[in-house]
Amino acid sequence: MSTSFVLEQGVTRSLHELAQQLRVDSVRCSAAASSGHPTSSMSAADLMSVLLGRYLHYDFTNPDAPGNDHLIFSKGHASPLYYSMLRAVGAIGEEEFLSYRRARSRLEGHPTPRLPWVDVATGSLGQGLPIGVGLAMAGKNLDKLPYRVWVLCGDSELAEGSIWEAAEQAGYSELDNLTVIVDVNRLGQRGPTRHGWDTAAYAARFHAFGWHTQEIDGHDIEEIDRAFSVAAAHPGAPSVILARTRKGRGVAAVEDKEGAHGKPVPDPDDAVRELGGIRDIRVQVAPPASVLPAQSLPAQRLPAHGRWPARQWRPPAYEPGSMASTRTAFGEALAALGDTRPEIVVLDGEVSDSTRTASFAKAHPERFFECYIAEQQMLAAAVGMQVRGWVPFVATFAAFFTRAYDFIRMAAVSRASIRLVGSHAGAAVGADGPSQMGLEDVAALRAVHGSTVLCPCDANQAAWLTGVMADLRGVGYLRTSRGEAPVIYQPGERFEVGGSRVLRSAPDDQVTLVAAGVTVHEALAAADLLADDGISARVIDAYSVKPVDVITLRAAARETGRIVTVEDHWPEGGLGDAVLSVLAAGGQPLPVVTKLAVRAMPGSATPDEQLQLMGIDMASIATAAAELVGH
Amino acid sequence: MSTSFVLEQGVTRSLHELAQQLRVDSVRCSAAASSGHPTSSMSAADLMSVLLGRYLHYDFTNPDAPGNDHLIFSKGHASPLYYSMLRAVGAIGEEEFLSYRRARSRLEGHPTPRLPWVDVATGSLGQGLPIGVGLAMAGKNLDKLPYRVWVLCGDSELAEGSIWEAAEQAGYSELDNLTVIVDVNRLGQRGPTRHGWDTAAYAARFHAFGWHTQEIDGHDIEEIDRAFSVAAAHPGAPSVILARTRKGRGVAAVEDKEGAHGKPVPDPDDAVRELGGIRDIRVQVAPPASVLPAQSLPAQRLPAHGRWPARQWRPPAYEPGSMASTRTAFGEALAALGDTRPEIVVLDGEVSDSTRTASFAKAHPERFFECYIAEQQMLAAAVGMQVRGWVPFVATFAAFFTRAYDFIRMAAVSRASIRLVGSHAGAAVGADGPSQMGLEDVAALRAVHGSTVLCPCDANQAAWLTGVMADLRGVGYLRTSRGEAPVIYQPGERFEVGGSRVLRSAPDDQVTLVAAGVTVHEALAAADLLADDGISARVIDAYSVKPVDVITLRAAARETGRIVTVEDHWPEGGLGDAVLSVLAAGGQPLPVVTKLAVRAMPGSATPDEQLQLMGIDMASIATAAAELVGH
Repeated sequence: MSTSFVLEQGVTRSLHELAQQLRVDSVRCSAAASSGHPTSSMSAADLMSVLLGRYLHYDFTNPDAPGNDHLIFSKGHASPLYYSMLRAVGAIGEEEFLSYRRARSRLEGHPTPRLPWVDVATGSLGQGLPIGVGLAMAGKNLDKLPYRVWVLCGDSELAEGSIWEAAEQAGYSELDNLTVIVDVNRLGQRGPTRHGWDTAAYAARFHAFGWHTQEIDGHDIEEIDRAFSVAAAHPGAPSVILARTRKGRGVAAVEDKEGAHGKPVPDPDDAVRELGGIRDIRVQVAPPASVLPAQSLPAQRLPAHGRWPARQWRPPAYEPGSMASTRTAFGEALAALGDTRPEIVVLDGEVSDSTRTASFAKAHPERFFECYIAEQQMLAAAVGMQVRGWVPFVATFAAFFTRAYDFIRMAAVSRASIRLVGSHAGAAVGADGPSQMGLEDVAALRAVHGSTVLCPCDANQAAWLTGVMADLRGVGYLRTSRGEAPVIYQPGERFEVGGSRVLRSAPDDQVTLVAAGVTVHEALAAADLLADDGISARVIDAYSVKPVDVITLRAAARETGRIVTVEDHWPEGGLGDAVLSVLAAGGQPLPVVTKLAVRAMPGSATPDEQLQLMGIDMASIATAAAELVGH
Repeated sequence: MSTSFVLEQGVTRSLHELAQQLRVDSVRCSAAASSGHPTSSMSAADLMSVLLGRYLHYDFTNPDAPGNDHLIFSKGHASPLYYSMLRAVGAIGEEEFLSYRRARSRLEGHPTPRLPWVDVATGSLGQGLPIGVGLAMAGKNLDKLPYRVWVLCGDSELAEGSIWEAAEQAGYSELDNLTVIVDVNRLGQRGPTRHGWDTAAYAARFHAFGWHTQEIDGHDIEEIDRAFSVAAAHPGAPSVILARTRKGRGVAAVEDKEGAHGKPVPDPDDAVRELGGIRDIRVQVAPPASVLPAQSLPAQRLPAHGRWPARQWRPPAYEPGSMASTRTAFGEALAALGDTRPEIVVLDGEVSDSTRTASFAKAHPERFFECYIAEQQMLAAAVGMQVRGWVPFVATFAAFFTRAYDFIRMAAVSRASIRLVGSHAGAAVGADGPSQMGLEDVAALRAVHGSTVLCPCDANQAAWLTGVMADLRGVGYLRTSRGEAPVIYQPGERFEVGGSRVLRSAPDDQVTLVAAGVTVHEALAAADLLADDGISARVIDAYSVKPVDVITLRAAARETGRIVTVEDHWPEGGLGDAVLSVLAAGGQPLPVVTKLAVRAMPGSATPDEQLQLMGIDMASIATAAAELVGH
C-alpha cells in the first residue's frame, strides 16, 4: 500500500496530497477516540505538510540525534495532526495510531514525552513557544549546533503573557534559529478570537519585539514554502509566519464553523471521502546535519566522566558556630559545582544579588542566563535546556515561583528535570512584607508530581544539598532563607534526600519538635527552654520535606508520643502536613500533634519580631510543647 | 510650619519643590527604617509631584468617595514615595510616617490596603497595571463614572508577560480612562534593564498593542505636565507616558549608580541637605467629580436591599437520582444568581462553554467579561473590579488557575474578595490527559491566606454553594467536575461553609470514608461493597475542604477509629491533608488513616478508567478500608 513519495517532482501537488492525508488521519483518529480536536488540526495541515516534506531535518529512527531539529506543538490540542505526521513518517503504525486517547496509549490527548519524538508536554496554551525559545537559546549559546527550532502556535494562545515574555527574550537574543508558525484559524474554543484573521495586528506586535514577520495564506502550498524558505534564511532575528487558515479546512460541515472545537467531525466517513479518501503516503524527512562527536552530545549525556565530577566537587565550608545564610551558601556551592560540572546552567529572574546566583554568574558567565523579571519564560527556558541534556538551576524569590506555577506543573508532565531555588522564604524575610515572602512555596512544590522539596537550615547543609539537587530527577526545589543563622553542621557532612537529623535526643524524651529551615534554630532554643522546665524534647531537622524521613519520624512518634511541627509557611500543605501524612500512613494510631505555622497575614517587622508575631519562635514552640506534655 | 502651596502661581517651581520634598521624605523614612527603596522613589518624584499637584482628583478625607481617581503603585517598592505623598496631602502625620516598615505600622515595606487609600497590595511586579486595567474596565463598563486610573510602573516590570496581557486587554477595550506612567530609570535590582533608556523600544511595543504613547524627560516638570495633559485628553485608547529618569535623582552618591537598589542612601543627612532640606509643603489635591447618588455606589455597597436578594434567589433544581454535572449546575446557578444580584460580574478565560459561565453570559451580557486566554489579566481584572464593590466570579479550568497563582496569592495580601471556579478537576477529566487536569488546585488554593475551598459532588450542592460563594470574603474557590454524576441531594438543601454531610452512618461503623467531589460517589459505592463483606462504613461528604468540618470528622475518628480519605488530586495538600490537620489539632491521639489520592501521572483514558488506574475508585476504597479494618 505504501506509495513512494518523491518530493522533488510535482512538489506542490504532492504536498497538498500529504496535507490531505494529515487531515484524513486527524479525522480518523479523533473518530476512533470519540474525542479530540480534528478541526484545530485540519487548519494547520498544509503548514505541517510543507514543514515535514521540505524543511524539517530529523531522523525519526533516532530521536536523540544531536543534530535533529526540534518541533514543538504549542497548540498541543492539535495532537491528531502531530500523530498523523508520525504516521506519515513511519514512526508509528496504524494500530498504535488508532489507539489515540485510549488508556495506556502513548498517543495521549495532548502530546507528552512518553513518545520519544516529543520534547515536552504541551496542552497548557502559551507554553510551547517559551520552551522553544529555551531550546533555541541552548542551540545558539550552549550546544552551538545548527539545529532549528520550529514551534506551531495557535492564534488564541497569543493572548497569553508568556508568549510576549518569549517574544521579548527571543527578539533580544536574536534567535534566528527559531521559526514560529501561527495557525491563525480565527476561532478559539468558544468563538472568534479577539483579532480574527487580522494577522497585521499580530505582526505589529511581534515586529515591535524585534521579530521578522510574514503574513501568508496558510492553505497556499507555494506561499507557505516561500515563507519557510525566507524565515529560515533571515539572519539576526527570530521569525514568525502568521498564516491565515480555516479551522476544519476541507470538510464543509465544520470548515470555519463555530461550535466545532474539540469534538470529532459529525460524519467521519463522509469527511474522509470529501478529503479524497485514506492515503498511505510515506514521507522521507531530510536527515539532520551530521555533527562531530565533540559537538554532538550535551554534557550530561557524556559517558562516565560526565557524571564523575559530581562526586569530586568541594562544597564551600562554613565554620560551625559562625553565622551564614543558606542563600549565600547555595550561591557559593553552585559556583563551586559549576567548576566540575560543565552541564550545569543557571537562570535567574533579575535578582541574582539576592538569590546569590551572582557567584555562579561571575565564575561561569557563559552558562548564566539573566532572564530579567519574566519568571514564566525563565522556567520555560530551563525546561527547553534540559531537553538538550543541560542541568538547569533556576532561582528567584520563593514567592515569585508562584508566577510560573503552571510551567512547573507542566514540567512534571514533561518529565523534565529542573532545579528551582527559592530565596527569601517565609515571614523571616522581615521588613519587606508579605508580597516578598514565600509562604505557600512548599505547598505548591510538594503538590507537583515526582517533586523533591529540601529546606536547609544551615550553610553547610545548604551547600551539600545544592550538590544533591544537581543529580535529582524531576522537579527539585531548594528553599533558602534571607537572614544569617548559626552554622550547626560540620563542613562536608552528607545529607540525603529523604533524610533528617536528630539534633537532640534522650531516652526520656516527652515530646518531639520537628522543624526545617529557620525554625530549626527556634526549635533548638525551645528545647533549651523546655529543659529548664524539666521537659525533655527531641529535636528533628526535617530538611527533606518531600520525601520526608518516615522512619525517624515514626520512631519519634512512637517513642515520645507527642509532636510539635513548626514551619515558616502557611499551615496548609507544608512541613506539618508532610509529617502528618507519613505518620498517618503507618497503619498505627497517630501521636498527638500540634502544628505551628504562619496563621496571620504578616506585615513589616524585623525577622525576629516576625517569628514572634506569627507564633513560630522559640517561646511559642516551648509553650505548645509544654501544653502537649501537660505542663 | 505648614506652607500654603498655591499651584496656580509659579507652578513649575512649586512642583519642583514638592518633588524635592518627596525625595527628602523618601530618604528620611528609609533611613529611619534602615531599609527600603529610596532611590527607586527619587526617580519618580517629579512625575508624582505633577500628578498630585495638577492631575489627581481625590478626596483623601474620604477614600471611598465614588468619584475618586485610583492611583496604583505597580512598582510597590517605591513605597517611600507613596507614603511621602500621603504625608504631603496630610493623610498621615510625621510620627506615622517615620514608623515605615516597623512592626504593626500600616506603612509596610510595600503598600497594602491596611491603608485606606491603597486599593490593592503591590510588590510582586507586573501586577499593578493589570489590576489598574480591571479598575478602568469597571469605570468604563460597570460604574460608568468619570474617575481616572493612574498606574506608576517601573521599567524592569515591563518584562513580565502580565504587563502585555494588560496591554492587550486595555488596547482592545480602548480604555481611555487609564494613564500609565513608566519610570524608566534604566536600573533594575541587580543592574541595567534590557532596554536601558531606550523608551522607543517600549513605545513601539505599547503602540503595537493599540496604546497612545509619549516619551519624555521624567525630570522636566513642564514636559511631564504637558504629557499628563495630552494623555488625559486622548480619546479611544489607553495612554502610556514613558519617562526617562535617573534612579536616586538628586543625590550624587546614588544617582544613576548601580548597587544602590533597595537600601537607604549611605548618608541620609547629607542627602537631605543636598536636596535642599526638609520641607513641609501641604498639597491641596483637586477634589473628585461629584457624582449623583444613583451613580455613586457600586451595587454591593448599597444599603440593605443590595444584600437582600441573596436570600431570595432560586437556585436551579435537579431531580434526585438524575444525572448532572456540577459545572453545569454552577453555570445555571450563577445565571440565576445574577438575576437578583446586580453586583455580580463574571470573567472567563475563553472557556465559558466548558466552565458553563456561558449561561450567565447569555443572561447578563453587560456583566460578563470575555478575558480570552490570559488568566493573569483575568484574575487582575477581578481584583480591580472588587475594589469598586463588584462581586466577581472568575472561571477557567481548575488546572489553569496555576497560571495566575501569584495573582491569587497577592489577592489575599490585598484583602480582596474574589470567587474562583475551576472546572475539569482531577483525573476524572478523562481522555484529554494531565495537562487539562486540576490535580494541585486544592493544595494551591488551601495555601492562600483566608481562603475557602468548596468541592461539591452533586448538582444541587454545587448550585447552593454558588450562592454561598457570592457572600464569601477573601479568596473563595469552587471546584467543579466535567462529567455527570448522580444527584443525591434535594433541591434547595442548604450547605454551609465548614459543613459536611454524613451520607451513611450506623452505631457499629468500623471505618469512615471521607470524600469530596467525584470521589463521594465512589465512596458510597465502596460502602455498598464493604457492606457485602460485613463491614459497616460511615461515609462523609466533606464538600467544605477549607474550612473542613472539625466536629463531624473528630466524631467519626472517635467513633470508628479508622479513616480512609479519598480525593481526585495529588496526595499533597488536598482533602487528606486537610482531614489529618484537623484531627491532629484535637489534642487527642489520631485514628489510623489511609489516604487515597492520585499517585501516578495519568495519561489518557475514560473517566472511569482513570479513577481505577489512579486507585481512587470504589474498589480501591473498599480494599483500603477492608485492610484498615483487618479483613
